[in-house]
Amino acid sequence: MKVTLNTDVLSTNNQAADLNRELFNNTKTLVINVMSSPGAGKTTLLEETVRELSSKYRIGVIEGDLATDRDANRVRAMGAQAVQINTNGGCHLDAKMVSKSLQQLNLEKIDILFIENVGNLVCPSGYDLGQHHKIVVLSIPEGNDKIPKYPQMFMRTELVLLNKLDLLPYMDFDVETAKKDLAAINPDSRMIPLSAKTKEGLEEWFSWIEGAYQQCLEQLK
Amino acid sequence: MKVTLNTDVLSTNNQAADLNRELFNNTKTLVINVMSSPGAGKTTLLEETVRELSSKYRIGVIEGDLATDRDANRVRAMGAQAVQINTNGGCHLDAKMVSKSLQQLNLEKIDILFIENVGNLVCPSGYDLGQHHKIVVLSIPEGNDKIPKYPQMFMRTELVLLNKLDLLPYMDFDVETAKKDLAAINPDSRMIPLSAKTKEGLEEWFSWIEGAYQQCLEQLK
Repeated sequence: MKVTLNTDVLSTNNQAADLNRELFNNTKTLVINVMSSPGAGKTTLLEETVRELSSKYRIGVIEGDLATDRDANRVRAMGAQAVQINTNGGCHLDAKMVSKSLQQLNLEKIDILFIENVGNLVCPSGYDLGQHHKIVVLSIPEGNDKIPKYPQMFMRTELVLLNKLDLLPYMDFDVETAKKDLAAINPDSRMIPLSAKTKEGLEEWFSWIEGAYQQCLEQLK
Repeated sequence: MKVTLNTDVLSTNNQAADLNRELFNNTKTLVINVMSSPGAGKTTLLEETVRELSSKYRIGVIEGDLATDRDANRVRAMGAQAVQINTNGGCHLDAKMVSKSLQQLNLEKIDILFIENVGNLVCPSGYDLGQHHKIVVLSIPEGNDKIPKYPQMFMRTELVLLNKLDLLPYMDFDVETAKKDLAAINPDSRMIPLSAKTKEGLEEWFSWIEGAYQQCLEQLK
């Protein structure tokens, strides 16, 4: 019974995700689903990303949180079109929530759309939102054991942004171990160590986005 | 339909939780359900707690993780009876998982049992495990906005351990704001700032446990 239910829930979600994807492709909007633990620094990273790229691209952000509209206000202040989804206790975004929130965005005027998922290293990994890319932000203070301990999340991502690199001197964290752990469960993924605070490593992340956008346009030709 | 299902799931869980609680009361075992985001430092805090209290009390730990038995091994090395639950993707412990894991512990020989829940600031808050107390570990690097952004978790706890106080000099975090935010949504709760690394503030946490244990014995007389 439980399995049937989960299958149904996921199948309904996948149908909505496919519709979202069709819409994103029609408007040539690159969509990136950003996931992490609470407090890994997703919003600060998106603030820096919007600040850097908004002179060149039209950026949109969908913010997912249990409560408050703080995050949408933060990225809007940096120049993004932004909409806040409140899940009211729900532990992840789903494709229908995203679909509904799209009514408040003009996709025709968005080149790159970031979807900041609810802070949670478990539930968001199973839900397709119709995005082109799934990425995970992992932060140094969370410790070296998170990749083996939350394998479902890290198996399904193509890029891990290792954030808060500025805190490395104060923590027992080994970047090479994290890279090896990621390669062991997900050999096709990539890790970019960076700090949204000091801006170290951000160039590599911005280049990744620009590459993904060009590739998206090529594929939609 | 969705509401009915959730009610059923929670009602089944509550029945199992009541049975757990009866068992804990029969063996006079104080049980504390410890919740937090991934990487807030629950296991390090429990290591220090077992190290400090195991000369005076017989300590048990149930470790909940998606994968690996790393955490059970860590607290066992400090002298606790420990059992690992792997949820294989599940985002929280439930009362039945705890009940099953109790077969591997001798409750008659445990005075204080900690249940370390899956690292997740959302899902574990709704599930009664049969514990006497629910507490949340929040860490400084997660940032000042977590209490208003994850209200369901902080509304249902009686104690927040504000961990990684040693990182305060390197972060934009205001302890007084966190205390005010907690008081606003949960006036009966208490916050203890501490650092499992430098041991600052740990005495207050140990005293809280000892007080809770004495109170538990009084109530079970």
